[in-house]
Parts: sequence; structure tokens; C-alpha cells
Amino acid sequence: MLKERMQEYAELVNKALDSYIIVEEKAEKKLLEAMKYSLEAGGKRIRPMLVLEGCRLFRKDFEKALPFACALEMVHTFSLIHDDLPAIDNDDLRRGKPTNHKVFGESTAILAGDGLLDFAYTVIAKELQNLEDIERKIKAFEIFSTCTFQMIQGEFVDISLEGKQIRSEELYHMHDYKTAALLKAALTMGAVLGGASSEEIEQLEEYAEKIGLAFQIKDDILSFTGDEKTLGKPIGNDKERGKNTFVTVLGLEKAKKILEETVQNALKILSKFTDIDTVFLKELAVFIKERNF
Amino acid sequence: MLKERMQEYAELVNKALDSYIIVEEKAEKKLLEAMKYSLEAGGKRIRPMLVLEGCRLFRKDFEKALPFACALEMVHTFSLIHDDLPAIDNDDLRRGKPTNHKVFGESTAILAGDGLLDFAYTVIAKELQNLEDIERKIKAFEIFSTCTFQMIQGEFVDISLEGKQIRSEELYHMHDYKTAALLKAALTMGAVLGGASSEEIEQLEEYAEKIGLAFQIKDDILSFTGDEKTLGKPIGNDKERGKNTFVTVLGLEKAKKILEETVQNALKILSKFTDIDTVFLKELAVFIKERNF
Repeated sequence: MLKERMQEYAELVNKALDSYIIVEEKAEKKLLEAMKYSLEAGGKRIRPMLVLEGCRLFRKDFEKALPFACALEMVHTFSLIHDDLPAIDNDDLRRGKPTNHKVFGESTAILAGDGLLDFAYTVIAKELQNLEDIERKIKAFEIFSTCTFQMIQGEFVDISLEGKQIRSEELYHMHDYKTAALLKAALTMGAVLGGASSEEIEQLEEYAEKIGLAFQIKDDILSFTGDEKTLGKPIGNDKERGKNTFVTVLGLEKAKKILEETVQNALKILSKFTDIDTVFLKELAVFIKERNF
Repeated sequence: MLKERMQEYAELVNKALDSYIIVEEKAEKKLLEAMKYSLEAGGKRIRPMLVLEGCRLFRKDFEKALPFACALEMVHTFSLIHDDLPAIDNDDLRRGKPTNHKVFGESTAILAGDGLLDFAYTVIAKELQNLEDIERKIKAFEIFSTCTFQMIQGEFVDISLEGKQIRSEELYHMHDYKTAALLKAALTMGAVLGGASSEEIEQLEEYAEKIGLAFQIKDDILSFTGDEKTLGKPIGNDKERGKNTFVTVLGLEKAKKILEETVQNALKILSKFTDIDTVFLKELAVFIKERNF
């Protein structure tokens, strides 16, 4: 069921994303191309999927959440473009393809990131023009902007701590902001738009925090032991680059153990729900742990 | 009257801006400091003033527009930080002070810009939680995000055309996006929040377009003939740097002539208003032409 639904969501999101940014023959053409390049560079679409699923848990016409889902993918893409910049992580490859600044140059990459961040809000602003469910939409907008700011702060913490010996609490704080913030935003925005109760939203937020952590730990493990071809980036050099990851800070075995525990905790939270169908979220938690890309 | 009211607005805006970003003792402290550094670097606050004045034209309690005014100043500041980056304009000085990346480093400057752009939307999202005048607020939010995207595109056009021989139409298009977009946003957002009619908004938008153009032409003239100390930046090197300005493209005399005409056109638009008090806007248009900083 997970695979089929992920496929369904990804198709919906890709089609919608494609319709938002139209590259016309004008002076700004190259900027829009640069934005589209990274948006279409083969992301897993985990965040927009969580928005749609979060909404689907509480209402049938979950497509209503699509604009927010797309906006979140735009913000995620913006963060990748800026993270990869020479002044920040200086990465040449992302998902097996040259990073944005490698293709379009540094100045365009900076502005393409800026453009995606702003355009995400334009999508939300347009969605708010329709006053149906307006209070829910405004709440989703607030979650969106707040968590995006957390994510930016998380990236800052990451670069500030690079090359330094850090404590595990710092590592957890960094990733709670850097990775978990947008995943939490995704699921709770969806649930808010679906009309979930505040208790339900709280539970889902906790679940999202766990899978956000699991996602990052698995990323760090893959970045140490994964297959370069499957991952589309160089492997095993986090330590030399002074990157603080769960593997470099805690060691591989401990990282694997915490990953397992974290996923179990996520599943435990879901088991408290009796009225809604959490099969997708359960399978997603396991998928995050077991994926090899 | 202009001076006193500008002072009044600047004080309101500065106080409000100061209350938004609180620098706490935590890991992200330096990022927030970097955001505040540029926000408090002595901007003229023209954009937030236009938001407040636009609102005041139509309602007494114009302070209602303050969150939008502050959000716009944050976006303006974000654009300055990113424009100054080594990969873009590579400027060391801004308003007589070292630019953001000179003080905090390039990676922090990128993230401080990102942070200000996103935080501007957080301010708006919080403002939308209060449903009073919600349709006006949503309209203002849409103008805000759309014009910000135009401004980013304008910056892209600017860097794309750098060092190239350009036609005067390209110069006008670039500045309509790069400079006028946010000034238009400012005044129309204020007017929308104040409850102006669509005809009034259209007229004010035209006026803002004119003063946006005048503002840029005057900037270009000052950048050629101004006083380094008063302006806080080096003078007279636009041509060597391959910058396309009204002076380098059209020549100083023609630029001065167009400035004069543009301000006259702005005043002509205002003369059509009979019900509202446009003295401030009239004086502002003249001020923009005559300022020496």
C-alpha cells in the first residue's frame, strides 16, 4: 500500500509543481529554469506526501492540501540549493546531478533559492484568496513560516558547529530544527487543513519529530555505508569534512540502535490512534529506516 | 510636514522592528544578530513609510498596517544582504558600514537573508491570525509575495545584463522590477489595508511606479556625482564595474531630465485625487528628487 500511495502522491505533486512555474521567453527565463531544475531533480517528495496524507487522515478530498504540499517542496528545494552553495556545504552533486550553482552559477543559484522561498508564499497567498476553510489555511500558513524559520536556524547551527567537537544534545537540537522542522510542518499542516483536533495534531507532531530524527540518522548512516551510485553523491567523507553526523558523533553501531528505537517510538505513537487509518504512516516509518537511497 | 511625519513613521517602524527579533542566548544567537545588524543599519525606511501613509490616506488608525510595514522592510533588507554578496555585487560597504558578509561571513549572510525573507512572512502569518479585516490582509499578503518575487527577478535581470550593452527598454524593465516593485507593493498594500477603492489603488500604484523610477534614477545620479561620505559608499565606479545605470546608459544630462519629468508625472497623478490628503506623497516625490543621500 505504501508504494502505490507514494506513487499516487508523487504524481499529483509533480503535476501541480509543473503547473506553477511556467518558463516564458523573457529576461528572467534563466532564473525560472534554475528554479525548475532543482525542483525537478528527482526528490523523494516525502514532505508534500506527508501534507497530503495528513489531510487524507481526516477528510476525503485531500487534494485541497495540494498547494501547501507544493509550497513545502519549494521551500525544501530552496534549502537544498542554498546548502549546496560554495560558501556553505560546497557540494557539487545532489541526487546524482550537478548542484544548482554548478549548472547556473553561484549568483543565479542564490537568487533561484530566494525565488523558490518567496514563490512558495505566493502559492499560499493565492490559495488564501479562496476563503473556504480560511481559519485552517491561516493556521497552516503560520506553521509553514515558523517551521521554515526553524529549518534556516538549523542550517545555521550546522555550519556553526562544523569542525567542532559537539555533544549529542547539540546534535539532536540541530536536527530537530534542520530536518524534523519541515517534516513536522508537513504532517501538522495537512492535519490542520483536514480538520484534526488539537490532540490529534499534537500526536502527529510527535510522530513527525520521530521520523524526522529517523530520517536524518538513516541519511547519516547511508552517507557512511551507502552505495555512491544509488545515492548520487560521494560516500564516507563526512568525518574528513568536519561534518557532525549521528555516525561521526555517536559511531555507527549506536546510530543504528537509536534509529531502531526511534522508529519503534514513532510506531508506538501511531498505535494510540483508533479512529483513523495510520497504515501509510506506519509503513512510512519502516520505509525510512530500511531505504537504501 | 514631510520631515515630521517621516520621523514619526521611522520611530514607529524602528520600535516595532526591534520588538520582533529578540536575540536570545542560544545556538542561533549569531544568526539573529546578523539579521538585526542589517535591519538596524540606518535604512531610510521609505518602504514601510509608504505602507503606513497608504493606509493613513483612508483610515485614521493607520498603525494597523505596521506589521506589513515591518515585514516589507525585512524583505528589503534581505535583498540588500544578498545583493551585496561576493557572488553578486561584491560590495564591502552599505550606508557607510561594512556589509553583512564582511562582518559575519558569507555563509551567515546568506542564511541571515533567507531568515529575514522567511521571518517577514511569519510576521504576516501572525497578523492573519486576527481575522478582523481578513480579506484586506490576505490581499495585502498576495501583493507582498508577488512584488517580492518581481524584485528577485529584477535583481536577476540586473546581474544577467551586467557588462553588456543594453537598450533603454531593458533598463526600464529591470528597474520596474528591481526597485519599483517593492515601492508599489508598499503603497498599494497600505491602501488595501486602509480600504481604498480599486480605482484609488490603481492610481496610487501608478504614482508609486513613478517615484520608484525617480528613486532609482536619483540613486544612479548620486552614485555618479554624490558625496562618498554622505552616501557611505564609493562613488563614480559604476561604469568600470559594468553596471547598467541611468547615467551609464543614458548619460548624466538625460538622466536628470527624465528624473524631472518622472517626478512631474508623479505629481500629476496625485492631482487627480480630490477626497484624500496627498500632501505627504507630493512632498515625498520632491524629496526623492532633491535628496543628497
